[in-house]
Amino acid sequence: MQQTAAEVAAGLLAGETAAGARAIRWLDDRDARGSEVLAAIYPQTGRIHVVGVTGPPGAGKSTMTDMLIGEWRARGKRVAVIAVDPSSPFTGGAILGDRVRMARHALDPGVFIRSLGTRGQGGGLSRSTHDAALVFDAMGFDVVIVETVGVGQDEIDVVNLAHTTVIATVPGLGDEVQAVKAGLMEAGDVFVVNKADRDGYQAAHRQMEMMLHLRAQAVPPDGWDVPLLRAVAIDNQGGAEIVKAIEAHRTWLDRAGEFARRGGMRAREQVMTLVRDELQAFVLEHVGDALIERVAQRRLDPHAAAREVARALTERSTLA
Amino acid sequence: MQQTAAEVAAGLLAGETAAGARAIRWLDDRDARGSEVLAAIYPQTGRIHVVGVTGPPGAGKSTMTDMLIGEWRARGKRVAVIAVDPSSPFTGGAILGDRVRMARHALDPGVFIRSLGTRGQGGGLSRSTHDAALVFDAMGFDVVIVETVGVGQDEIDVVNLAHTTVIATVPGLGDEVQAVKAGLMEAGDVFVVNKADRDGYQAAHRQMEMMLHLRAQAVPPDGWDVPLLRAVAIDNQGGAEIVKAIEAHRTWLDRAGEFARRGGMRAREQVMTLVRDELQAFVLEHVGDALIERVAQRRLDPHAAAREVARALTERSTLA
Repeated sequence: MQQTAAEVAAGLLAGETAAGARAIRWLDDRDARGSEVLAAIYPQTGRIHVVGVTGPPGAGKSTMTDMLIGEWRARGKRVAVIAVDPSSPFTGGAILGDRVRMARHALDPGVFIRSLGTRGQGGGLSRSTHDAALVFDAMGFDVVIVETVGVGQDEIDVVNLAHTTVIATVPGLGDEVQAVKAGLMEAGDVFVVNKADRDGYQAAHRQMEMMLHLRAQAVPPDGWDVPLLRAVAIDNQGGAEIVKAIEAHRTWLDRAGEFARRGGMRAREQVMTLVRDELQAFVLEHVGDALIERVAQRRLDPHAAAREVARALTERSTLA
Repeated sequence: MQQTAAEVAAGLLAGETAAGARAIRWLDDRDARGSEVLAAIYPQTGRIHVVGVTGPPGAGKSTMTDMLIGEWRARGKRVAVIAVDPSSPFTGGAILGDRVRMARHALDPGVFIRSLGTRGQGGGLSRSTHDAALVFDAMGFDVVIVETVGVGQDEIDVVNLAHTTVIATVPGLGDEVQAVKAGLMEAGDVFVVNKADRDGYQAAHRQMEMMLHLRAQAVPPDGWDVPLLRAVAIDNQGGAEIVKAIEAHRTWLDRAGEFARRGGMRAREQVMTLVRDELQAFVLEHVGDALIERVAQRRLDPHAAAREVARALTERSTLA
């Protein structure tokens, strides 16, 4: 069994699944060996294509992810998946639902599926996603699909870090769900109406067309023509067109210098996320109960308390 | 027009709607006068009952909130609402949908409705919710309903800060939506199956019963017997029972010393949220492009970069 960070780093650079799984576990557990592995592999990263797949609950994202894995495998590409599950603090894990379908890829060494809970505050989700994507990158995977429910700021943060974002919708969603989706419109590079054999497909398609039209008026053109596709993922229909659109987007990213630019944004966001994590841990440890007690007893207001704490950290900072 | 913080503070302590709206706007805009108002009113707060209403998209939360407002108004209580809307960065605001129904309360001075977007990162949502709740508290409102989509860590954070959390569900939701809801089970104090006149009500009721049974086994008993109610909010059915359950929970909170304890947790969380905000702003301002450039060019790994930044802030900290 590989025990040292150097052994695990060497193993995963050679593409070994067990080494990759171990590195990810260390990183999730905040084991210092995780950071050691990351330092060793980091120079070998920067090639993987990060593809976000998102949309409202019920849009069939897992089924679509499953279909995309199949399409890429048929093209000889190696595919990793980071599935961000809503998880229950008391069941102790995610309810997998139809994600179990992906089990058919379980024995394929060209596929690596990682489920993450939404547990933990303060960027835990972003941090784990970033770390796992770097591990998959160093292992030589060509694509990592980050699948997430498109609701909530954390999830939107994750999606915003993809090179290419696929937004899935379905016919017949209620108004509220449509509103949820609206928050993601700007982030989408490829749109898919899934379950396109259902009643209401034409209406859903028209609604998306209208939203894309509104978006085109609000956002300055960057040269990428956003496609609106149809799929019936459960019947494996439409996958080839989606993969083609994603790869066309990748080509566009490279030509426009956007792949490097989005990579730079990812680097900035990852550093900021980690800094927030470290500072939060430090503050939690050092803010005394006495201060909170004064706030709870209405002798000090929360804004003044926060200023006091922040000043203690920043006034003698050696940051340039 | 009231211009100074002192005038606005005096106005809102006298219950003036315009003063309250102005204070909230200052707080949202991070205008320093907002913090001044907060310092002035804070000693007068601590009485309001914070009630979270949450559930998956489509559960009819807004309609239920509307019904609860009506019930409380009939009992002579003053009710504020903080509606947390998913908002689009490009439409420039929330899609209101059926929330427009609440317009019937618009001219009632005993009702104050505040819509918040989910915009902004790093606790923006929690911060705005906390601040607004304190303003309503000082204005003399009896109850503030915090209505939010029950998906995403930010939203769960907001819900966890309520004194009483009402979880709404409806018949016929897909598995994925049920999974989303699972993440909130532990936070619920009152459960409601809304749209109870629909097909599938019995199944939804049984499912919730089973979940509550599982929860009772996993969570140590604290003396509060969690009720499972039914409602058809659109027809104004079930509101009286829900309000009765919420008020029984409030009585239990007071008797068990939980009202003060949850208030203390709110104070801690509010201070931490504000500290995170301040530190994030400081770091964003001071982390140079040169550092990020080294990370983007693979000359420095993100974990090492983050340690470097965090150390610059913490090594000379004067926090006790």
